[in-house]
Amino acid sequence: MVIISENMVTRMVDLRSDTVTKPTETMRAAMAAAEVDDDIAGHDPTALLFETEMAKIMGKEAGLFVPSGTMGNLISVLVHCEVRGSEIILGDDSHIHIYENGGISTIGGVHPRTVKNNEDGTMDLDKIEAAIRNPSYDLYPTTRLICLENSQANCGGRCLSPEYTDKVGEIAKKHGLKLHIDGARIFNAGVVGNALGVPVQRLVQAADSVSVCMSKGLGAPVGSVIVGSKSFIAKARVVRKTLGGGMRQVGILCAAAMVALKEGVPKLEIDHKNAKIFAAKKPKHTRHYVVVAPELNPDVPMPTRADMSLAFLHEMR
Amino acid sequence: MVIISENMVTRMVDLRSDTVTKPTETMRAAMAAAEVDDDIAGHDPTALLFETEMAKIMGKEAGLFVPSGTMGNLISVLVHCEVRGSEIILGDDSHIHIYENGGISTIGGVHPRTVKNNEDGTMDLDKIEAAIRNPSYDLYPTTRLICLENSQANCGGRCLSPEYTDKVGEIAKKHGLKLHIDGARIFNAGVVGNALGVPVQRLVQAADSVSVCMSKGLGAPVGSVIVGSKSFIAKARVVRKTLGGGMRQVGILCAAAMVALKEGVPKLEIDHKNAKIFAAKKPKHTRHYVVVAPELNPDVPMPTRADMSLAFLHEMR
Amino acid sequence: MVIISENMVTRMVDLRSDTVTKPTETMRAAMAAAEVDDDIAGHDPTALLFETEMAKIMGKEAGLFVPSGTMGNLISVLVHCEVRGSEIILGDDSHIHIYENGGISTIGGVHPRTVKNNEDGTMDLDKIEAAIRNPSYDLYPTTRLICLENSQANCGGRCLSPEYTDKVGEIAKKHGLKLHIDGARIFNAGVVGNALGVPVQRLVQAADSVSVCMSKGLGAPVGSVIVGSKSFIAKARVVRKTLGGGMRQVGILCAAAMVALKEGVPKLEIDHKNAKIFAAKKPKHTRHYVVVAPELNPDVPMPTRADMSLAFLHEMR
Amino acid sequence: MVIISENMVTRMVDLRSDTVTKPTETMRAAMAAAEVDDDIAGHDPTALLFETEMAKIMGKEAGLFVPSGTMGNLISVLVHCEVRGSEIILGDDSHIHIYENGGISTIGGVHPRTVKNNEDGTMDLDKIEAAIRNPSYDLYPTTRLICLENSQANCGGRCLSPEYTDKVGEIAKKHGLKLHIDGARIFNAGVVGNALGVPVQRLVQAADSVSVCMSKGLGAPVGSVIVGSKSFIAKARVVRKTLGGGMRQVGILCAAAMVALKEGVPKLEIDHKNAKIFAAKKPKHTRHYVVVAPELNPDVPMPTRADMSLAFLHEMR
Repeated sequence: MVIISENMVTRMVDLRSDTVTKPTETMRAAMAAAEVDDDIAGHDPTALLFETEMAKIMGKEAGLFVPSGTMGNLISVLVHCEVRGSEIILGDDSHIHIYENGGISTIGGVHPRTVKNNEDGTMDLDKIEAAIRNPSYDLYPTTRLICLENSQANCGGRCLSPEYTDKVGEIAKKHGLKLHIDGARIFNAGVVGNALGVPVQRLVQAADSVSVCMSKGLGAPVGSVIVGSKSFIAKARVVRKTLGGGMRQVGILCAAAMVALKEGVPKLEIDHKNAKIFAAKKPKHTRHYVVVAPELNPDVPMPTRADMSLAFLHEMR
Repeated sequence: MVIISENMVTRMVDLRSDTVTKPTETMRAAMAAAEVDDDIAGHDPTALLFETEMAKIMGKEAGLFVPSGTMGNLISVLVHCEVRGSEIILGDDSHIHIYENGGISTIGGVHPRTVKNNEDGTMDLDKIEAAIRNPSYDLYPTTRLICLENSQANCGGRCLSPEYTDKVGEIAKKHGLKLHIDGARIFNAGVVGNALGVPVQRLVQAADSVSVCMSKGLGAPVGSVIVGSKSFIAKARVVRKTLGGGMRQVGILCAAAMVALKEGVPKLEIDHKNAKIFAAKKPKHTRHYVVVAPELNPDVPMPTRADMSLAFLHEMR
Repeated sequence: MVIISENMVTRMVDLRSDTVTKPTETMRAAMAAAEVDDDIAGHDPTALLFETEMAKIMGKEAGLFVPSGTMGNLISVLVHCEVRGSEIILGDDSHIHIYENGGISTIGGVHPRTVKNNEDGTMDLDKIEAAIRNPSYDLYPTTRLICLENSQANCGGRCLSPEYTDKVGEIAKKHGLKLHIDGARIFNAGVVGNALGVPVQRLVQAADSVSVCMSKGLGAPVGSVIVGSKSFIAKARVVRKTLGGGMRQVGILCAAAMVALKEGVPKLEIDHKNAKIFAAKKPKHTRHYVVVAPELNPDVPMPTRADMSLAFLHEMR
Repeated sequence: MVIISENMVTRMVDLRSDTVTKPTETMRAAMAAAEVDDDIAGHDPTALLFETEMAKIMGKEAGLFVPSGTMGNLISVLVHCEVRGSEIILGDDSHIHIYENGGISTIGGVHPRTVKNNEDGTMDLDKIEAAIRNPSYDLYPTTRLICLENSQANCGGRCLSPEYTDKVGEIAKKHGLKLHIDGARIFNAGVVGNALGVPVQRLVQAADSVSVCMSKGLGAPVGSVIVGSKSFIAKARVVRKTLGGGMRQVGILCAAAMVALKEGVPKLEIDHKNAKIFAAKKPKHTRHYVVVAPELNPDVPMPTRADMSLAFLHEMR
């Protein structure tokens, strides 16, 4: 919790996590007005619109709305590893490995092979390549997928450069593997990208699939989207149904996600600026709560939204 | 599609499925106004309110909102069968066995043992008991659960009596098994129960867990709820997270589900009445579409909502 | 236990099961002399010889020795169903469904769809075809395999005719499915086949894979073999390793299996004759033990081996 | 292949792996004479004798013969992790993680969490403890098991001291976890232990389960044994059956294993001595083959058996 005294006005900002954001009035209005139909039958117009829009933004053929980022990653891994005996390479400090209940193994029987995450969120390219199994040995699982995370949450929300991602993509191609990006906070990485004139789709150009959260810092109440090729999404739809992630008149949630896309994404830049300013002030903090000193420059736009980005939070800590 | 000519007024009713219902204005307003917080952290007040209310109605200790009926059944089976090598007994024409992608095996490694569904939706008690494995043989999986479905969709939406359910519950107890009821349309069964003075919780009294859909005929856009003991729900929460069914500000959906509970449930009785009247008229129909003759008695209340119950649909066919 | 008084000589035959057979002196000598090497590295000459011989006898391209019939079936199902979300069609009284711990689900996540076994061990062809899932529906698992069992143990060791098996094979081909035959006792079926001039490979001609037990009535101490195409066996080898069924100097066991093949198979015919004669005498029996009256025709060859066939045992009961 | 010219006599030793050993004449005789019965029914006397003997040597309550070391480890992990959602902690260079097809995930849905193996085969105690998950978080899998490997093959066959193992055992106990030791080559570690006056059972005292290979350097043609408490072994028996590792007249193999125990274990000491001498000579070698110089001291006992221990092999490379 940040208590900001500004010209005698004290404001509080909840900085526990960027998952505690609440839908804005625009989102609520959009949900109330959303045109919907049965999405499991494939007829919900708002879901189709949102999925198409997200695919376009990410530069992929198709998209699929899912209840959570965890399911987005789980489905993606299960589709790429649809054959029994698969192994994936991922960071030892990645969200999939640490915070998703081990679902890829528990639910999907997929074996994880971890490579050390560096402080900047990357894994060394030679270590990735060394972790790929020789497919001719019958005592090895079959490597089928490499997973990156951008921004990499546990490394302080660090962003992966498109050049790095491209190199990982080349390794994947060379060995016949797929590349998935856990882009739960890819739009946070996108803020950095924008500053460099790089659109967000460039950040995921090398990826066969990307999962993106619309809740968290963007403020939608529920949901993520996965994007990829048409055939990938067709298979993802079946896995979503198997997991119980198919939802009927889901356009309600997609309407909010569309607002998050239009209004939330531009606001991330403000969050990042605030984060830097706050961090420079070296505010005192205990555990998850931060108290900001009152001498803070009043010209600086205050964080008025709860949806501080994770990058912000990490800089605060 | 039903085209009803009534005093020169033609109305259409979509009778493909009770899953194509759309949220009412009240629901939309409720979603727009819902108080929400991060439910994965356990703080969403509307979710807590709705889960508590559903538990109370069903006569169980606790409840958990999930994205779909499929996930509600899947989580329930996985919790009761948390130990590897489990088998469940269920109807050979049950929704879990036929329409849920085989998820209990695919995702959970649970082995199904089917018993023939009779025309009235029941399974013979002696056949259920005969299907229970002798736990002392090491070449058998371990029977851990019996699943009923009420109303039983593929048997024409037939309702199971509380007396029958109790007897199955007694068999389960005698053998140390659990009883789960797929109550996707338990409120449709409740209409029949109400006519006999039996509250809906009486229908599921013998069950250790029940899944209930709020979408379908009740009209909520998304979601189901599972109810059971506190320890069951605590485990269910973890499995929900593993599957990716945890959702952040899910109070939005729970607010709609609450309206479905308050407004949708009473309307099911009207649906059932309409269904009987329509069926008596023996309307012509092709595939999923039904054309009702214009001589239909104009005093009869017309089905004005899209959420015709499944019982209705079955009687129409 | 059969106690046979014959010219004042009493002999006992253990009729509990054909799994209690013991290796003959020839087998023991063969094991003691077997040339062996590391089979996991693919170098054991006796294993290669035996696998090649079995493939030839069964009319398939290749073979693989495995520790048990259960593993033979499990590997076969897992290879044919290597993609997540698979369903198989099999008899509701089949060995795989009843006596193998539900391993195809527990271990492999494969969903079983059962069809009623008739008294003669068959499943009705129209019921098999009706059980095949429409692949265009995303709420169905994908049917990938049909399993037959020949002879069908729980139906009294009844044999399936090659004509019936062919018809099931045609259904499989028509729908792009595979056909596996659990031929644990295919050589018992072969006795019936031989009487009709049909070689054993004709019985499994329509199958993509067959598992055959060398223990049981044939008398080898340990092991089964699976046969199929080269690509099937290549995948089976990997799955065998995953399950822990790869064995080092396994030629020891294959040497015994080779003797079982050469000496045990011809003796099955005698077992079948004895079975008929004994059954005609309607001997008294309690539980698993049978006492044969002394007036038994002394010209009839007595069952001198423990490895009474299952068909025999069933006729005795 | 080692070619040793000794007083003009050239002998060859196959040093590719200690898995290429062949059964001695004593073993072959023992197999030929073994008393056997149906072990799946629990009646094979030689299997019972061997399992009992191995349990005694390892200081545990009971034992179970299995077809391979891979299955021994797989069963052990599956028994300790019988509840869905389990995670194990193991070395990043351990045999289970690298060479067993990822079976614990593929087959068992168990999620691995690796800790770096040091050069001496240990994992740092604080890293082990740090890897244990907080059981109160519902986004973590549940840590249930720590696995050690003694001797640690990929670290050059290095041995873990009983003191180190005890400390890991204390961590496990403190957190309510189990400790499994992959003791494929525990008798090689035992050679080192013997030199220090420490019996092999002391090396595994802290373990809840141990798997031990009888093939490899000990020379039995097939098989491993797992030891643990009676309840552990009872569950292991069921999992063995599920995997298809139950074998009928398995006493044949156990008879050979018993000889490996009596004759092979003492010979390991000679292997270790030879290994040191050879290594000191710094023989030239290409890939897996080693040529020893002829000036080798003729008083030194030559490696006359093929079953060079892994420790030996590692020192040679």
